[in-house]
Amino acid sequence: MLQLYFSPMACSLASRIALMEAGLDARYHLVHLRTKQVMDDDSDFRGVSPKGAVPVLVLENGERLTECAAVLQYIADRKPETALAPRFGDPDRYRLQEWLSFIGAEIHKAFLFPTFWYKDDGSLAKPRARIPQTLSVPSAHLADRDFLVGNSFTVADAHLTWALLLLRPAGIDVGQWPSLSAYLERMQARPAVKEAIATEMALRKTMAA
Amino acid sequence: MLQLYFSPMACSLASRIALMEAGLDARYHLVHLRTKQVMDDDSDFRGVSPKGAVPVLVLENGERLTECAAVLQYIADRKPETALAPRFGDPDRYRLQEWLSFIGAEIHKAFLFPTFWYKDDGSLAKPRARIPQTLSVPSAHLADRDFLVGNSFTVADAHLTWALLLLRPAGIDVGQWPSLSAYLERMQARPAVKEAIATEMALRKTMAA
Ligand SMILES: N[C@@H](CCC(=O)N[C@@H](CS)C(=O)NCC(=O)O)C(=O)O
Ligand SMILES: N[C@@H](CCC(=O)N[C@@H](CS)C(=O)NCC(=O)O)C(=O)O
Repeated sequence: MLQLYFSPMACSLASRIALMEAGLDARYHLVHLRTKQVMDDDSDFRGVSPKGAVPVLVLENGERLTECAAVLQYIADRKPETALAPRFGDPDRYRLQEWLSFIGAEIHKAFLFPTFWYKDDGSLAKPRARIPQTLSVPSAHLADRDFLVGNSFTVADAHLTWALLLLRPAGIDVGQWPSLSAYLERMQARPAVKEAIATEMALRKTMAA
Repeated sequence: MLQLYFSPMACSLASRIALMEAGLDARYHLVHLRTKQVMDDDSDFRGVSPKGAVPVLVLENGERLTECAAVLQYIADRKPETALAPRFGDPDRYRLQEWLSFIGAEIHKAFLFPTFWYKDDGSLAKPRARIPQTLSVPSAHLADRDFLVGNSFTVADAHLTWALLLLRPAGIDVGQWPSLSAYLERMQARPAVKEAIATEMALRKTMAA
């Protein structure tokens, strides 16, 4: 069985959504990202991955795969019949990769990561000034589309759904981009997305308590 | 013919290296990133891509593909016989995607981008404090390997070569990681890499003058 190292509402949420949309069972291991503890057994998460970052997907052969873009494509390809990624050879596969890169680099690493990880104002002024221009890209794209790639839900939507969910706690009102807030509502209405978020929100409350 | 919008020594260098390693002819359009001018005809680069960022690859059908990870995989797949990416279905393809994501997010977007783009110290202290931990990942991986993925040059090597080249002007001495400086030397000895860098360094001097 696949195993996912995750932290509640961290970017690994996209991988949980993908697993659930694919109908793939998995064992989930909760990681405390500041202390680098795996909560199962208090072991050091850096023993699982020296990066010390989630997601980490443990494959059936024991190998460990990191990075949202790679993990999400791996999960999608495990269940091609669910069409969570265009098949290799379909030109839309590159559009999927384009969105995964944009979300992982421009929204996550350029903005969400410094906001939640660095916290002090000095680090945040420039990333914050830049985020409206960044968000105008998916906003324009989704003005007349239901999904990022093609006509159905893909792992790029799982990734963007996570990123948009985190914008509010990061102090950005998604309502400024009506196409993004309508999209987020549509995504959150999907049973797998709803269940993944509910599970992680409940776990998050336990950790804060 | 493919067309690449680039700026000298920007991350689009990896795409130029990939095109040259693949033996693919292309038309190259120089972009001034601060003014957003396409130097061919002084037109606004945001008309080519609203992101205003390089690389942009124009495909034969006129479509435009952005994001290093997507552009590099597209170029590699145009010439499968050059093995610039493991074929779809090969588990190493996910390793390629993992490295492209790591380089694009953790080295480029988390460190190089703020260093060259934001410039002020307030934005830079945290990214700079984090970069040694980031670089320890490829450094450990390359301690006993010649290439990032498998046993031959892939587009992930093109991507990392660019990132390592930029570390010195960013004030980071790659010599601190002997496996990375040895790797960079090996990569720079490749004829296509050497020629790509020489071309862009020459263009860069013209622009600065
Ligand atoms: N480029 C990585 C980013 C992973 C990442 O930054 N994960 C965060 C949680 S959203 C994390 O684990 N941070 C802890 C740390 O970096 O120490 C990816 O796409 O997976
Ligand atoms: N996530 C993008 C990053 C592209 C990027 O940041 N390009 C830089 C040059 S290295 C750029 O064009 N910057 C100009 C700008 O962002 O306004 C990718 O992987 O292609």
